[in-house]
This record gives sequence, structure tokens and C-alpha cells, in this order.
Amino acid sequence: MLKYAMIGGGEGSFIGDVHRRVIRFDGRAQLIAGSFSRDEANNKRTGESLLLEGDKVFNDYDTLIKEVKDLDFISIVTPNNLHFPIAKKCLENRINVMCEKPVTLALEEAQELRKMAENNNCHFAVTYTYTGYPMVKEMKELVSSGKLGKLRFIKAECPEAWMAEKIEDHGNKQAEWRSDPMQSGKTNCLGDVGVHMENLVSYVTGMRIKKVCAVLDAFVEGRKLDDNAVVMVEFEEGVKGLYWLSYIAIGHGNGMRMEIYGSKGSVVWVQEHPNELVFTPLNEPSRILKRGAGYLSGLQMQNTRLPEGHPEGYYEALANIYSNFLDYLTGKKDPVHDGSCKYPTLDDGINSLLFVKKSMESAENHSVWVNF
Amino acid sequence: MLKYAMIGGGEGSFIGDVHRRVIRFDGRAQLIAGSFSRDEANNKRTGESLLLEGDKVFNDYDTLIKEVKDLDFISIVTPNNLHFPIAKKCLENRINVMCEKPVTLALEEAQELRKMAENNNCHFAVTYTYTGYPMVKEMKELVSSGKLGKLRFIKAECPEAWMAEKIEDHGNKQAEWRSDPMQSGKTNCLGDVGVHMENLVSYVTGMRIKKVCAVLDAFVEGRKLDDNAVVMVEFEEGVKGLYWLSYIAIGHGNGMRMEIYGSKGSVVWVQEHPNELVFTPLNEPSRILKRGAGYLSGLQMQNTRLPEGHPEGYYEALANIYSNFLDYLTGKKDPVHDGSCKYPTLDDGINSLLFVKKSMESAENHSVWVNF
Amino acid sequence: MLKYAMIGGGEGSFIGDVHRRVIRFDGRAQLIAGSFSRDEANNKRTGESLLLEGDKVFNDYDTLIKEVKDLDFISIVTPNNLHFPIAKKCLENRINVMCEKPVTLALEEAQELRKMAENNNCHFAVTYTYTGYPMVKEMKELVSSGKLGKLRFIKAECPEAWMAEKIEDHGNKQAEWRSDPMQSGKTNCLGDVGVHMENLVSYVTGMRIKKVCAVLDAFVEGRKLDDNAVVMVEFEEGVKGLYWLSYIAIGHGNGMRMEIYGSKGSVVWVQEHPNELVFTPLNEPSRILKRGAGYLSGLQMQNTRLPEGHPEGYYEALANIYSNFLDYLTGKKDPVHDGSCKYPTLDDGINSLLFVKKSMESAENHSVWVNF
Amino acid sequence: MLKYAMIGGGEGSFIGDVHRRVIRFDGRAQLIAGSFSRDEANNKRTGESLLLEGDKVFNDYDTLIKEVKDLDFISIVTPNNLHFPIAKKCLENRINVMCEKPVTLALEEAQELRKMAENNNCHFAVTYTYTGYPMVKEMKELVSSGKLGKLRFIKAECPEAWMAEKIEDHGNKQAEWRSDPMQSGKTNCLGDVGVHMENLVSYVTGMRIKKVCAVLDAFVEGRKLDDNAVVMVEFEEGVKGLYWLSYIAIGHGNGMRMEIYGSKGSVVWVQEHPNELVFTPLNEPSRILKRGAGYLSGLQMQNTRLPEGHPEGYYEALANIYSNFLDYLTGKKDPVHDGSCKYPTLDDGINSLLFVKKSMESAENHSVWVNF
Repeated sequence: MLKYAMIGGGEGSFIGDVHRRVIRFDGRAQLIAGSFSRDEANNKRTGESLLLEGDKVFNDYDTLIKEVKDLDFISIVTPNNLHFPIAKKCLENRINVMCEKPVTLALEEAQELRKMAENNNCHFAVTYTYTGYPMVKEMKELVSSGKLGKLRFIKAECPEAWMAEKIEDHGNKQAEWRSDPMQSGKTNCLGDVGVHMENLVSYVTGMRIKKVCAVLDAFVEGRKLDDNAVVMVEFEEGVKGLYWLSYIAIGHGNGMRMEIYGSKGSVVWVQEHPNELVFTPLNEPSRILKRGAGYLSGLQMQNTRLPEGHPEGYYEALANIYSNFLDYLTGKKDPVHDGSCKYPTLDDGINSLLFVKKSMESAENHSVWVNF
Repeated sequence: MLKYAMIGGGEGSFIGDVHRRVIRFDGRAQLIAGSFSRDEANNKRTGESLLLEGDKVFNDYDTLIKEVKDLDFISIVTPNNLHFPIAKKCLENRINVMCEKPVTLALEEAQELRKMAENNNCHFAVTYTYTGYPMVKEMKELVSSGKLGKLRFIKAECPEAWMAEKIEDHGNKQAEWRSDPMQSGKTNCLGDVGVHMENLVSYVTGMRIKKVCAVLDAFVEGRKLDDNAVVMVEFEEGVKGLYWLSYIAIGHGNGMRMEIYGSKGSVVWVQEHPNELVFTPLNEPSRILKRGAGYLSGLQMQNTRLPEGHPEGYYEALANIYSNFLDYLTGKKDPVHDGSCKYPTLDDGINSLLFVKKSMESAENHSVWVNF
Repeated sequence: MLKYAMIGGGEGSFIGDVHRRVIRFDGRAQLIAGSFSRDEANNKRTGESLLLEGDKVFNDYDTLIKEVKDLDFISIVTPNNLHFPIAKKCLENRINVMCEKPVTLALEEAQELRKMAENNNCHFAVTYTYTGYPMVKEMKELVSSGKLGKLRFIKAECPEAWMAEKIEDHGNKQAEWRSDPMQSGKTNCLGDVGVHMENLVSYVTGMRIKKVCAVLDAFVEGRKLDDNAVVMVEFEEGVKGLYWLSYIAIGHGNGMRMEIYGSKGSVVWVQEHPNELVFTPLNEPSRILKRGAGYLSGLQMQNTRLPEGHPEGYYEALANIYSNFLDYLTGKKDPVHDGSCKYPTLDDGINSLLFVKKSMESAENHSVWVNF
Repeated sequence: MLKYAMIGGGEGSFIGDVHRRVIRFDGRAQLIAGSFSRDEANNKRTGESLLLEGDKVFNDYDTLIKEVKDLDFISIVTPNNLHFPIAKKCLENRINVMCEKPVTLALEEAQELRKMAENNNCHFAVTYTYTGYPMVKEMKELVSSGKLGKLRFIKAECPEAWMAEKIEDHGNKQAEWRSDPMQSGKTNCLGDVGVHMENLVSYVTGMRIKKVCAVLDAFVEGRKLDDNAVVMVEFEEGVKGLYWLSYIAIGHGNGMRMEIYGSKGSVVWVQEHPNELVFTPLNEPSRILKRGAGYLSGLQMQNTRLPEGHPEGYYEALANIYSNFLDYLTGKKDPVHDGSCKYPTLDDGINSLLFVKKSMESAENHSVWVNF
């Protein structure tokens, strides 16, 4: 049983609970310490509810990082602006890290972390949860196996409805900080789901973006940061892409959707029905591929727990991110023999921050094309 | 019974047959003359198969227009480059016209036709078939009734797969002329389906485009004209839009799709399932509206023939275009009392040509924003 | 151009208009006479609106049948109880017939017509419209080609909502006569859509029913005839089936659906999305087959007018019934060379009446199995 | 933290792992002892992998039950034939039980357990996992709130493909014992998924079955037990139902589906898309209800962990079964104040066994109606 500590994730936090659940779910690591909240009472209550001894609950993360021995990794689930200082401290102490996205606010910070992780020989994973879905991995296999031929056009979108009204004025905490330039920096919607979309596409296709041309809008009256974004993209080798992200798209919960068109076939995945994939070979009928089915690839199989027809969801996707991370920590997998690193890395975190930064630069300059 | 003549639509033509069928279908007009093909033998055979007397079949359209009396209208279904001279001749002779899209090759030609039609008091309709679908009309009603609130973002797309391979090199006639700059001008995909998408959106929303920012691509190796296009759009009053058109989108037949997002609701329509509409009011579940159902608007009802659950399709959509046109010809409807002209007009034709022209201009200039 | 007369289908009739439209649509036959209504004024008005000379409009069908010469066929679209006497008269005069379903009220009448048609060498078609859908024909090809292996289980259903309330008490004419034992005989829902479902299944599978076990219900309080029916079926060679028909199934327009399971594959078709078919080979992913696509069979192609992605609907299905009928009338097809008769025949009409009769017998006897 | 032991669920067992995962997931109970397999080596290895001390792993369940103190409950996940003796022993020792379905092989055994549980004041839950889905609970609310009006007809089906071939002859263990009369008794498909369907329907509707009329088939050549079943059902108050269960339905993974029709509305749920529900009020458009949305009921909310648009699946459904069970064990809920017992009970287990028994009786007697 591995040992981990959590920083952030106190009472009232959504994502901290999600992390602890999926770690328990697979039963490969045990929470042995935490610094859950800067609010001491909250921190104490959270520790108690998780059955930690009082001396394993720290009011400052510094002390935790210094004093707790034998940690296999630390999960960072604090507000975004704290990711960098905490992660830095972990790496200084040669502790592996699982960090929520976006890995840092500034690109340079993420680059600094990458250097430190390399130098200190630490594993550092970023929770791009959606790449943990088994059918996203199948999609990656379809691309790398050549079944789509040469890639041509990628359409990625994430319409959501949750900020279609000015809910930041009516007590929605998350909407408050996301729409506040003081807390979120220069972007709301693009920065939040844009990093997911960029990461999903680059995970599945293995391609790097060369330049972008973007438009950001704040449609809700009085809102200062974007609630809708369109980004046209150019990848290597003439592949083109189109990203649409929205927080005002009434009718959508989490409408994440990825469509990949190549010279020999196409594939479409929709996050709200994550157990399916539509694959169409050139001049043939579309096929509905289903998670767990016998005709799928090994990569999908390794990331699946239930048989076909028994839905897996968001929790299991994050559990897969952790599971692949732990495989590397424990040496069950290694970069040399397993080909490519199978958990989302700092490189992934950096690429998606770059995407956001360059897209904002384009949007601020009348949608001029901006090179990477 | 009204009387009409057809120019174009000889043996081997697809669209001429479609027009004749839908006119017969409603039984309000009768074909009394034709000039179907410049190939005399074809022209003769077509006339015979349509049971026309020999002297009602003309080898040149000029003679037809001059000699045939009492025509209520002429349908023009020739190759695109002939639309202008034929339409001009019709208008000179004060004959009403139903013309296939794109109404002309050059914008200026369409503008000239508009003046002539006005001066000569002629009805001139352009066959933007898709606006004839009953549920597209219901969509228009949802917008104009205010059920979507203030419009914000429009997404329109038309992915098709038919030119995913270089079929113009292997005997596909339509692909040959569409991909040949000598016959199609500067655009293939954008010019062909872009005009439909622009028209659909402006029909439904009543909005005018102010500027565009576009990218055109020819993904199939060796192809000279675009087979994929993305256009970002700005409408009046800060409304934004995104159009994607493709001929290389494997997996799609005619994947025309329109999504409209407003402050109070959204609506989505998909051409391959034209009898349905997804309408989502703010903070409420999505509703599946079905053609023919009792809860729909009068506008939809007027354009529906079959009860709910009995699918109508593409033919019936074109029949509606004709039906509304004939209502105006016969005075059953008039612009004064029926509010707005309910068939697609030269204004519509001009707007969509403008969209294509400005989008090409943007694409040729590194996606600079181009004003209208 | 063939010549036909219509009996029934006066002003206010739905189905008469449908027949005339689809005949005009294909343009192979011309209406030359009619006896549209027993109401003389209605009859006269209908004839005028159809541009028939006054002497071609008959107040009684007898006279029409005797006096009008050179008729290629007569279309019978009267209320059900008149089908038999009119059809009989037509056959006595050696006139081919297209008759609405159910072909007669009593099984024996249909059997009598069959004998007469044989003896008098007449073509007699019954308008089982749904078998005219191209994808239903593709389904038939999938079965006969062996791609489903040995058939095992057939599920056929037709849920509709239209009689979920007691609308027969509030002025709905069709509901009035359908729910009235004096006009409809012993059955409402089973007799009306049951014949369609039986015909669809036997058309697609080529199988004959051996016995049935049924339950009929009248769920709406005070209703005398069935508004919901379940029939368990046994075919030849151990194949089993299940039919569900309902007029109280809120949420459904015309929810006709057929699922066929064999040893090597299955296929599912849904009437409201008639341009698609889901075909699943054993141990492989499901495929979405689309009307008009290049990978489909010739039989489908012969019954398709529009390319893939351009929806056809109910009218085109009925047009196919007529088209195949006319192919036989004109000798374009014949039973010897074209294998099997491709329009729905009196045998089909008789089989579906038998299905209704035996199912009622079972339902009246506590769902005992009733042999055919 | 509650304490539990597990009986069954050794290495190689699928369902034991599922139970342990979902218990860890919610973190309210801890595994403190086990008797996982009669194979001592397997038992030992399983215990070790679960980090249990050697003396907490028992080779016979008797000793475990007697010796382990302070157990809050025992989870029984053994082969079906062992459920009864183990559960009996638990109840004799006044230990609460969570037991896999079917709770016993014979109806009488389940009835005996019910008496013992009552007398000994024990909680006894049966893992009818599917009733744990939040949208199934929403469906129950729609019924009990009266939004469907008076219920009329229920259609429940569970088509699966997994035994479409004779896989019991080719090494599939589960197929081997399920199709073997010596191990499974008189039924395969009906007994396995029929109990789930019966339970789902009675959970959602609160209705009891009065009589059944059934057909069982073994379509795969040489198979001795049913692989397909149809059951017509009569409930209280004239409500009717139709169940179809199949293991030869190619194209389906776990195609569980429930449709409920009432006088004022209908609702449809499909297990493979468990986060949605289609609700149609009379004469209105269908609504797509989505798990986690603000417009849903409190009952749904209590059984939901993730926001709208983030899919939950099968594991979370079982977690809900446990969660409600633990609420009763800990007194957080009680039968008096919380209205009805919210975990599946022995009554549920008995009802579904009765359904299977009576259906088999009907099928063995030419589908005669059999009363309950």
C-alpha cells in the first residue's frame, strides 16, 4: 500500500473528495496526512472525518512536506494560485506530485517545475481527467494504428450552460472566482475548459499546435472575462483544427466532444456518453464501438474494469489517471519499456497553458494568427 | 392550374427532375414548355419523356422565352454560369423566376437582377431548399417569439464526406466541375454549401453579418479548391457565429446542423433528422419538438402535410419553397398582409454570395477580419 | 402515361390526397375519372379541384367502373367496409386494383377477391406503405442474403399516443369510427396497426406465422375496443416473435419499430428515422447503414431517389409501392424473371387479416395459443 | 467507520471486487475479516492482497461468523447456492446482511430468511444494483408524484448478446454454470436478469404482480435452459406489463430498458445511458431529464455525487445501494420517519423469485395464465 498526503480538499471542496474517493476505489494508496484548509477549524474537521490522527493534520503545508516521512506522493487540490508554490516545495523535497489542472497560473512557473522534476527525478502528473476515459484511449489507438490515415481536421468543443446567467452576482462561489480577473487572471472559460480540450486533442493525436487564431467573448452583460471562445488552430504537417468552448450554451451539461477526420476514416467521442465511440472507415458505414467489447484494443482493456454494457463514468476516468501514475511510481511500468508515459505530465500542462496564452494573445489582437 | 417552363434539367440532370417532381406533387402548376439541354437529342428525348409536344421543346432558351405565352413562371436549373443570362432574359420579358442557387456567379450580377425584378415587378425566388423544412420554420418562430431571449452565438455546420478522396480524377462529373477553378471560380465547398448555411442562419435569425474571418483548406492532395472551410462571424448587436463546412468529413452524408444560443434558451436542428428540433429553455430540460405535433406554431403547420410520426423529407422541403412562391404569384399571400416575403428572394441570394466573397477575401489575407 | 380512376378520397379525406400526390410525383399515371364521395356536392367539388371534366366525376362507383374505358387501374381509398364491394366490381370488370388496407373487413372476402383476381388475371395491390421504405427493403436483403444467419426472434412494435385520451368523445372523427364496434368490428388498435406490423415482418423475413397468444386491453375508461395489444407469435422452424401495438403510448408519434435477431447478426429499423438501419454482425460493432449509400444492395437502390443524407419519407415509401405495382402493370417486371412479386398482394392482405382474427380469438379465450 | 466481513469474492471473482471497491469508494465501512474462497490458497492470497492479518482470513465461514466480533454487517458474494446457508448463519448470530441476488435458490428459503431477520431484528439487503441509479429513483418519484397519472402499461426488457453462441462449450465459465441445469436449476436467462427486471419495475411503480403468462426458449442448438423469455403480466388495478429478456440478442451489451405509460405521461429509462430519462407529459413534447440537474427531485439528489454532465455509472449505483443500507444500520434513516425502506429487502428478493417461479410454471404449461 502506497502512502500519500493531500494538500487542499477541505470540507466544502468538491475535487478533493473526488480524488480521495478514486484513490480508495482502487485501494493502492492510503491517505496518511493532510493539510486540507487554511481555515483551521475546517482543516481539523476534515482530518477527523477522514480518521487521521490529529498530528497528521497540518495547518500549513510546509510543515507537512517537511515532517511526514515515506510519502509516495502528494495530491495537490488547492485553488489554482497555490499549485505552484506547493508543487515547488514538494519537488524540492523529492516528493512525487499529482496536481490538479491548470498546473500553474503562469507558463514560466510550469516550466520551472518541469526542470525541477527532471533534476530531482520526480514523477509529476496533472489531472487531465478526460484522457482517463477508456474510449479516449481507444481513440488514441485508432489514430496511432493508422486506421484514420493521415489526419486532416480536428473539431473539439465543450459547450456548457452553467454561466448562461450572471450567477456570480447571486452567490455561486465558483462562478464568483472564475469570473473575477483578480482571482482568475485574464480568462474564464478558455482557461478552464480550453486546457482540457487542448490536452485531449494532443493526447489522442500526438500532434503539436503551431499557431492559433482566436475570438473570446463575454456574452452575459457586465461579465468581465470570456464566457465563450472560438480558436482556429494549425498543427504540424498541415493538419487544421477548430475549438469551441462555451459557458453560455444552454442545453449542455458538459458537452465535451471531439471529432477527428483523417484520409481513411473518422472518429467521434462525446463525454456525456463516454462508453461509446463512433468510428467510420472511408466509404463504409459508421460503427458504434462500445467500451469493454472484445473487438477493442489492449490499451482500452487495461483501463476498463466493467464488462460491456455496464457504464463507467467520470470517477473511473480519474481512477485511471491515478492507476497509470501509480504504475510508474511502483515501477510496474516504465518509460523505456512502455513506450510513452501514460499519465498526463508537466509537458501536457505546459502545452495547454501555452494554448491558452497564445489564444488570448490572438484574441487581444483582432484574431491575428499567433505562432507558438 | 399555373403554367411554367423549365430551362435546364435534361436527361442526366439530378436537380431538374427534383423540381418537376415537387411541382407535380402539389399539383398547382403544369409544365408547358422546356429547353432542357443544349444537346439537341437529349433535349428532344427529355421533352418526349415529359409528354410535351415537339413545338414546346426549344433548342435555345431565347426562343422559348420569347414565344411561349402565358407563362406564370420559369424554373432555371441549368449549370450555375447560365443562371444570370437566362434570368436576365426572363425578367426582361417580365416573367417570374424560380432559380437554383447560387443565383449567379458574381455578386454584381445578382444585384443587377434584383433591380430588374423590382423595376419589372417580377417575383424571383432562389431555391434555398433547406429553409423549406417545417422545423426550420418552427425554429424561426422560436427566435421571433422571443423564447430564446437575446441571441448570443450561432453555430452552423455542414460536414459531408463525398470528396474525401480525389474522386474528380476517377470519373465523378460533379466533383470534376466543382473542383475545377475554370468552372467553379475560386471556391468549391464554401461556395456550394456555404451559401446554404448562411441563408439558413439569416432566415432563422433575421440577422445580418457585419464581418467574417475565414480559413479555407484543400486537404486532398493535388486539389486546387477548398474542400473544408471555417468562418468566424460577427453579426449585428454583438451576436457571434461559427460556420464549418467540409467535403472531407468522413462519416457524414449531409450533416447540416444549426445551433442557436440565446439568453433564455437554445435550439438545435439537424438536417438528416429534419422532423425534430431540440429546444432547451434556460434551467429546464431539453424538449424534443416533433413536426406535425399539436403544440407547434401556425407557421410550421402551414408547411406540413403529414401528421406527427410520418416523416417528411427533402422533396417536401422544396415543395414548400414552391408552394410559398406560388402563394405570392397567385396573390394568396402578399408582402403587405403576410408580413415578410416567405420565399427565398434575390436579397437572400445576394447575402449568401456576399458571405462567400468576403470569406474568400479573409482567407486569402491570413484570416484578417473583413467587413461587409 | 397510364390512366387511373379513384374511388373515395373526397374533400376532407387524408389518404386520398396522399395517393394522388405520390402518383403525380412519379408522373407515370394520370387521373382520368373519380367517384370521390357519396356526398354529391363534395364529389363535385373534389372533381373540379382536380380539374376533371364533369362527366368524369361519378356519383356512384358502379357507373364509373362500367363506363370509363381504358383504365389501367383503380385506386380504392374509401372507408374500410366499402373496399370489398368496390374491389369485387373492379375485378369483375377485369380492372387492376390498388386498395387501401385492410383489404376487407372479413377474411373470407379477401379470399374471394384473391380467387377472382387470379381467374381474371388482374393485378391487385394492397397499400402496405411501410414496406415501400428503401431501408425496409435493405432489411429484407440482409435476411435473404444470410447475413443474419438462421432467424431466432423478431420483435415488432408500434406504440402511438393519439388515443391516450378519450378523444372519440370530443369530436375526433377518426377516433370515433375506430373505437365504435358498429363501424370497426371487434378491434381498434390491433386491427389497424397490427396488420401493418404483421405485413412488415412477413415481408422482411418471408416467414409465416403458425400460432399466436394474445392479450388485448382497452385502457381508456369507457372505451369498448382495444387500445393496446400484445401478441406472442410462433413462426415456422421454431422462430418466435413478439408484437406490441398501442394507441395509449404517450411519447410516441408513429413508433413503428422492427428488430430481427438471428444466429449471425441482428438488424433494427425505426419508422420515424426511416433512412437508417442498425446492423450488428455477431461479435462485431453495430453499423449504421444509411439510405442511398454506396455499400447498400441493389434492391434498396431501385427504391431510392435521393442521394445519402437527403431524407426521404412516408410519401416516397408509398410512391415505391405504386412504382413497383406499375412496373408489373406495364410488364417492366414480371413474376417469372423478377423472382417474387414486389408489391403487396392479396396474399399479404389475407395473412394480416388472419393474424388479427387469430389474435382476437386468443385474447377472447384467456390467451390460449391459437393455431393458424 | 463501520466494520464488515466478506464471504466469497476470492481471486477470480468479479462481483466480490465490485463490492469491496464501492464500499471503499464511500469510505464508511472497513473490511476486517473474510472467507473468500474454499480454495485455501486462493483464500490466503486474497486476504493478503487486501492487507488482512492472517487470523482474519477464515477457511470456513462458520468460524468467521462465530469468532469475529463487532461486525456491523457481512457481505455475501458466493455462488448462488451458498447464499442461503450463509445468510441463515449470519442471522442466527444477529448480524446484518448484504446479499447478492438471487437471494436464495428456492422461494421457501427466502421466506425463512425473512422470518429470521424479523425475529432477530436484522437488516437484510439484496443487491438489486439497478435500483441504485439516481435516474431510476427519479422515475420512482415521477410515478409517486402522480405526474404519469394512473399507470396503464409497463414494458421492461433486457436484451443481451453474450450467449448468442454456444460459448458454454468453449471455456466460458459463467456460461457453463448458468446453462447447466445441475448448477442453475430450471432457468438461465429468466432467472438471472428476470429478477432484476421484476425488481426494477416493482421498485419504480410500487405495484405487485397478480398473474403471468410466459414463453421460454432455448434458441442456441443443444442448450438445455432458456436463453430468451417473454412474460406477459397483470398487476393490480388492471395495469398490464410485458417483459422480454434475452441472452441471444446480438447488438446489445446490457440493454436493460424500462418504459412506463400512464394516463398523463410516460417515462423511459435505458441502463446503458443511465444519466438520462425521457419524460413525456400528455400532449407535450418529450423532455430529456439529466442526472444532477437542478430541476430534479430530492430523492435523485440524495443519490448523486457528481454535477450534471459528469457521468456516473454502475459502480455508483451499487454504492447507492450500500449507502442507503448503511444509513439504516447507523440510524441515519429509519423506516418510521423515512417512509419506506430505501434499500432492496428480502421482500424484494422474494417477489422476484416468485416472478421467476410462476413464469416457469406458465411456460411449462403452454403459457397458461398463472396466479400469484
